[in-house]
Order: sequence, then C-alpha cells, then structure tokens
Amino acid sequence: VVDTVTRRPGGRSARIRSAVLASTLELLVRDGFDSLSLDAVAEHAGVHRTTLYRRWGSPTMLVVDALIDRSDTLVAVPDEGTLRADLQTLMAAVRANLESPLGEAVTVALAGARTDELVQAARRFWDDRLERMSVVVSRAVDRSEIAPADPHAVIELVIAPLFFRVLVDRRPIDDALVDMVTRTMVDGLAAR
Amino acid sequence: VVDTVTRRPGGRSARIRSAVLASTLELLVRDGFDSLSLDAVAEHAGVHRTTLYRRWGSPTMLVVDALIDRSDTLVAVPDEGTLRADLQTLMAAVRANLESPLGEAVTVALAGARTDELVQAARRFWDDRLERMSVVVSRAVDRSEIAPADPHAVIELVIAPLFFRVLVDRRPIDDALVDMVTRTMVDGLAAR
Repeated sequence: VVDTVTRRPGGRSARIRSAVLASTLELLVRDGFDSLSLDAVAEHAGVHRTTLYRRWGSPTMLVVDALIDRSDTLVAVPDEGTLRADLQTLMAAVRANLESPLGEAVTVALAGARTDELVQAARRFWDDRLERMSVVVSRAVDRSEIAPADPHAVIELVIAPLFFRVLVDRRPIDDALVDMVTRTMVDGLAAR
Repeated sequence: VVDTVTRRPGGRSARIRSAVLASTLELLVRDGFDSLSLDAVAEHAGVHRTTLYRRWGSPTMLVVDALIDRSDTLVAVPDEGTLRADLQTLMAAVRANLESPLGEAVTVALAGARTDELVQAARRFWDDRLERMSVVVSRAVDRSEIAPADPHAVIELVIAPLFFRVLVDRRPIDDALVDMVTRTMVDGLAAR
C-alpha cells in the first residue's frame, strides 16, 4: 500500500515540486535573483538537475512558479457578502504577506529587478493575480453595491498603498491606512 | 560686474552643487547605489573630493539631496482651485517623472535598496514630499470640498497606483488609471 501511494502520479512529483519551489524562494531571498541558478536550486533542494531543466528550464520560470504557488496559498480570494468586508480581508492578506520577512524580501527583489525576462514574468504573475482578485469587484457590481468599474484597476487602487509603504516611502503599514483605503474606495465607487 | 556676479556667495557654490547632484544621479542610474562613492562622483563632476566629504559626507546624503533637488523641480505643488484639478496635475507630474528614464531608474534602484541607511534616507525624502504635496488636501478641506482626512494618506492613495504599475505589476500607466484614481478619491472623500 505504501508503495502504491508513493508511486501514485503526483505523489513524489508533488513533493519534488514543493521542495524545489521552497528552495527557489529561500535562495532568491538569500542571494538575490542574479545569483539564482537551476544548479544551485537543484543542489539546495536535493533534486536531480535534469528534473529542473526539464520541468522549469530557467530561473525566471522557477521564480514565477514559486510566487504563483505561494500567492495562491497566502492570499485567498474572499467572498464575505459585501465589498467592504472583501476589501478588508484582501488587504489583511496582502499586508500579512508584505510584513513577512520572505514576502517583503521577494517583493523588494522583484521591484528592483530590471531584466526584461523578470519584468515579463512579473507582468504574467500580476495579470493572473489581478484577474483572480477582481472577482470581488465583479460580485459587488452584480449586487449593485457599486457602479460598474474596471475590476483590475479597483484591485490595483486598493492594494497599491500597501506596496507604496513597503517599496517607496518605507513607512510601516497601519490600520488607519487600511481603513482609509476601504472607506474611500467603497464610498467613491458607490457614488458614481 | 561679471566678476561680482560670479564671486557672489552661492554663485560658484551653486554651480558645484548642481554638477555634483547631476553626477550623483547619472552614476546612480549607471552603476547602482552599491557602487556609488564620493570619490567617483567627485571625479565625474570635476570637483575636489574634499568638497564632497565636507558638504555631503556620504553617498546616501548625496542621493537624498539629489532627489530632493530633482523632485522640487519636476513635481511642483499645484494650486488650481479644485481638488480634482490639483490631483490631476499632481499625478501628471509624478507620471512624467516615473516615465522618464532617469526617474524610473532611480525609483527602481531605491525600491530594491535594503540597507538601513538608504531606507532611512527614503523615509526622510518622502516625509518631506508628502508634507509638501499634502497642502492640496488641506486646501480642499478648507474649501469644504471634502471632509477632513489625513492629508499624507490621501496623497499616498493618489500616487501609489502609479508606483504600483512601475514597481509591481509592470503595466504602463494610462489615462484610464489616472481618471479612475481622481474620480474615486474626489467622490470617496466628498461622500464622508
């Protein structure tokens, strides 16, 4: 029975994937993107190099996959019945991620990256994230809570001030900021 | 007369300052903050090293001074009679700065910086900027256009989406985003 379980498609494969993605983020934070190589990740994760070359192909793909994996786990899309509650929950999740050492380090590393490959990867990652998160806006429009609005842009307006604190003015995120974003967005979108 | 003008206090000194700050930004963009030294800036600007050691003391102070100098020139604080017009003008100026090669490169370099010294410098720079810009919010409150609101936080909410595009999701800033920020903020703050 044990043999069957460990040989089941996805079992060993899922464990390898999990080890590789964890090592990717750990090395990204420790050494930066420029030092990240498939060989270094393979050694750190204790996985055959050929597996990484076959399944990911490049450090950029590793980082994008690791981020999408992590982001799905950490920032779940809420559905609490009101736009106000959904935005508060969404911001709390983004805030917790940005305030974690790993989340902050990855965000800072990606913001400082200027290679075309990494910029394209960040765009793909965020297109996916904004699409998922924006369902809270579409639902609020369907409930007639707010007037129709570009759902991606609403999400950007909501989470941008949190990233601004971490990446630009370097002040700590506080409850007053989160409350102000929630109130201004809900009132501003309803008023239209 | 010419001699009097060139010997006037601030004349030669102002030219040195201008050359040093321009060289600082040029080298910052070209080589990054980690490679920035007072000696390199002195050589690039054609100024005595001792002048830089006496007047600035560290690369961080040079960068902060260069940014404050540049920011005062590029992002003037508008006073156009309505919050809507002031926010539009402010965002247009921030957008132009972020879309210029130098402005984008400096923003990306500072966002990726993790040394304590540079983080403190970024905080000082932004405390100053937010204080200056927030007068457009105080004026709108005085005119009873909007309910009282934390002026620094309002400015953060307004400009954060522009920085989010450049530093996080890497999509180009467009007119639709600027319009949406303006409308949502004006309506949201008025509704209170």
